[in-house]
Amino acid sequence: KTLIDKKLGGPVNPAIRKEESKVVDSLDIEDLGNKAVFCRCWRSSKFPYCDGSHNAHNTVHADNVGPLIIKKKE
Amino acid sequence: KTLIDKKLGGPVNPAIRKEESKVVDSLDIEDLGNKAVFCRCWRSSKFPYCDGSHNAHNTVHADNVGPLIIKKKE
Ligand code: FES
Ligand code: FES
Repeated sequence: KTLIDKKLGGPVNPAIRKEESKVVDSLDIEDLGNKAVFCRCWRSSKFPYCDGSHNAHNTVHADNVGPLIIKKKE
Repeated sequence: KTLIDKKLGGPVNPAIRKEESKVVDSLDIEDLGNKAVFCRCWRSSKFPYCDGSHNAHNTVHADNVGPLIIKKKE
């Protein structure tokens, strides 16, 4: 059984762009700059970028989520 | 009050890398290729990449989450 079949978990996004049927963001690589940090907890006030809210979310909900970092090689 | 203060929602990640205290992925821009699609629903079997599982998740949990797409300009 897959995760979906088991119906594990619940809704992920409580409040961001709920007027959209599916929140997809598409960005051009050329516009990212040297480093971009993207939210995967759906709690950021700067969504789709991370603002650090995942830390409070993890504490409140005993979760372990964090951002996706896309960066230029050093 | 912020989303966190209101304690809206619940845990986001039911099963991915729960042995880690915070799941952060860091990738180099140079390795992305022409297009990369990243999971933000925490249900993908190819995490951190999207495998389309967000659609079943959205249906089962009345949610509206979707991926982050990073692509080269056309
Ligand atoms: S604020 Fe959502 S992952 Fe950082
Ligand atoms: S499978 Fe998670 S956003 Fe697509």
